[in-house]
Amino acid sequence: MIGPDDVRAAARTLDGVAHRTLPITSRTLGAQVVLKPECLQRAGAFKFRGAYNKIASLPPGTPVVAYSSGNHAQAVALAASLLGSQATILMPADAPRAKVEATRGYGAEIATYDRYTDDREALGSALAAERGLELVRPYDDPLVMAGQGTAALELIEDVGSLDTLVVSGCATIARELGVRRVVGVEPETGDDWRRSFAAGRPVRIDVPRTIADGLQTNVPGHLTWEVASRLVDEIVTVTDAQIVEAMRFAFERLKLVVEPSGAVGIAAVLEGAVATAGRVGVIVSGGNVGADRFAQLIA
Amino acid sequence: MIGPDDVRAAARTLDGVAHRTLPITSRTLGAQVVLKPECLQRAGAFKFRGAYNKIASLPPGTPVVAYSSGNHAQAVALAASLLGSQATILMPADAPRAKVEATRGYGAEIATYDRYTDDREALGSALAAERGLELVRPYDDPLVMAGQGTAALELIEDVGSLDTLVVSGCATIARELGVRRVVGVEPETGDDWRRSFAAGRPVRIDVPRTIADGLQTNVPGHLTWEVASRLVDEIVTVTDAQIVEAMRFAFERLKLVVEPSGAVGIAAVLEGAVATAGRVGVIVSGGNVGADRFAQLIA
Repeated sequence: MIGPDDVRAAARTLDGVAHRTLPITSRTLGAQVVLKPECLQRAGAFKFRGAYNKIASLPPGTPVVAYSSGNHAQAVALAASLLGSQATILMPADAPRAKVEATRGYGAEIATYDRYTDDREALGSALAAERGLELVRPYDDPLVMAGQGTAALELIEDVGSLDTLVVSGCATIARELGVRRVVGVEPETGDDWRRSFAAGRPVRIDVPRTIADGLQTNVPGHLTWEVASRLVDEIVTVTDAQIVEAMRFAFERLKLVVEPSGAVGIAAVLEGAVATAGRVGVIVSGGNVGADRFAQLIA
Repeated sequence: MIGPDDVRAAARTLDGVAHRTLPITSRTLGAQVVLKPECLQRAGAFKFRGAYNKIASLPPGTPVVAYSSGNHAQAVALAASLLGSQATILMPADAPRAKVEATRGYGAEIATYDRYTDDREALGSALAAERGLELVRPYDDPLVMAGQGTAALELIEDVGSLDTLVVSGCATIARELGVRRVVGVEPETGDDWRRSFAAGRPVRIDVPRTIADGLQTNVPGHLTWEVASRLVDEIVTVTDAQIVEAMRFAFERLKLVVEPSGAVGIAAVLEGAVATAGRVGVIVSGGNVGADRFAQLIA
C-alpha cells in the first residue's frame, strides 16, 4: 500500500525532470474548476511521472520492458532514455500511429500484440523472464502509482485546496491532502471500475471499444483496486460523443490538445456529471493524439 | 517612441491580470530554441497584453472601439469587460467564425467591414468621432506596443538571455535586454515588411491572401515602422504550406493549438529560415483557430 510519503518521495525524484504543469481555468467551466494540463507533461501525459519514478529506483542501466496502448509506452521509453536504460515496449497492433512513432523516436524497441485476444500481462512477464528485463507496469506498481500521484500533489500545492478531484488515474495523495471527494471517470463502454464499485470487488468485462484508447482496461488492477476502492468516492462515465465535445472544447477554448482518454474529466464536468460545489480539480491526463486522428474524430 | 521603461511599466499594469505563459522547448526544434506560448494567454493571444495596457490607461468606463481581424478584437473585448468599459469592434465580414463568436462572448458589440475594399482605419476613426469612443489600435500605439513587449520581457527574464528573438509582433524591449538579433516573420504573400525593409521606407502592397488572417497587413504602421526598422535585423517569409506544417508540429509535439499567424515563427525555425546559432526565442503569438478550420487546413 502506498501513502503520501511515497508520493512526496516521488516528487523529489521528479524535481527538475518532470514539468510542473501550471493549473488553468476557463470561464465556461466556472471559476471553481481548475485543470491540471498534463498533456503538456514530458512525453505528453502524466504517465511520465510514474515511469520515471519507477525506473529511477532500479540499478542504473537496468533494461526494462512495458506493455501499453501508448502513453505509458512513451513514458517508459523517454524515462529509460533519460536514465540510460534500454526499453522494449509491447504495444497493441492497433495503437495510434502517433504513439508508436513517438515511442520509437525515444529509442525503444517495439513489439506488438493483439489488444482483443492476447494477454499482454502474460506476454510482458514472459518477455521479462526470457530476456532478463525489469517489467514496468502501467499501474499496479507502488512506485508508478506514487509517481502519478505527484500530479495531484502539485495541483493541490498550487491552488491551495480542493473539495473534489476528478481523476482518470491514481488519487492516493488527494485524500491525505484534504480533498473531500475523489471522482473517477471512465468511458461508458469501458465501465469495469463502475461495475467493480457496484459489486464491491474487481469485475472483469470484455476489452471495451471506445475512442479512449488509454482507458481500454477490462478489470481494475489488484493493487490499484485496493487503493482506489478505499479512496475514490464515485465513478462516473462519459460517452465517446461527450469525449469528442470535450476535446473540441479544450482545443477551441483552452488551446490545448487533449487525447480522448485525457478528456474524460473535462467531459464529465461539461456534462454536469460531477457536482461542482466547491473547488474542483481535474487532471487532464494526456495529449497524445495525431492531428489527422483529431480531425477525423471531430468531423 | 517607446522604450524599455514603458514596457516595464506595462508589465506592472499586467501583473496578476495577464497570464505569465511558461517557456517551452522541444527536442525536435533543438535545446537552444525556446518558445513563448502566447496561445495560452487570456483571449488566446499576446494581443491581450497591449489592449489591456491601453484601456487601463483611460479614465475608468471609457467606451472603446477597435478594428481587427480577430485577436485584437477578442483582446479589446475581454480587456474592456475586465475594466468595465463598453467595446464596439469592427471585424472583417470573412473573419473566422470562432473569433467573431469569442469576441461577442466577451460582451462586445460587433460591426463588420470588407477586408479587401473598405478602409478599416477610416471606418474606425469615423465611428470613434461619431459615438465619442476611444480608438484602440491593434498596433501603432505606444501603450499597445509597450504591452505587447511584455511577452518578450517575460521570456528573457525566464530563460536568462537570448541571442535571437523571432517575432511576429513588437520587439522594442528585446534589444535593450541584450538580444543580439531580432527576426520578424511574415507570410510569403503578405511581405509588406520585407519589401519595406528592402526599400528603406514603408511600402504598401495589396491586402494579401494567406491563411494567416492575423498577418494580412498591407503596409507597416507609421509608429511601428519607426520602431521596428531600427530594432529588427531581418524579415523572413514562410509559405502557407509551411505554416500548416508548423501548426501540425505544435499540435502533435507540443500539444498546443496555434493559429496560422501564431505559427509563422515555428515555421521559420522548422524550415531553417532562422539561423539557430545560440539560444533562440520564438513568440508563438496566438491560438485562436476553430477545430473545424484546423481540420480543414491540415487535410
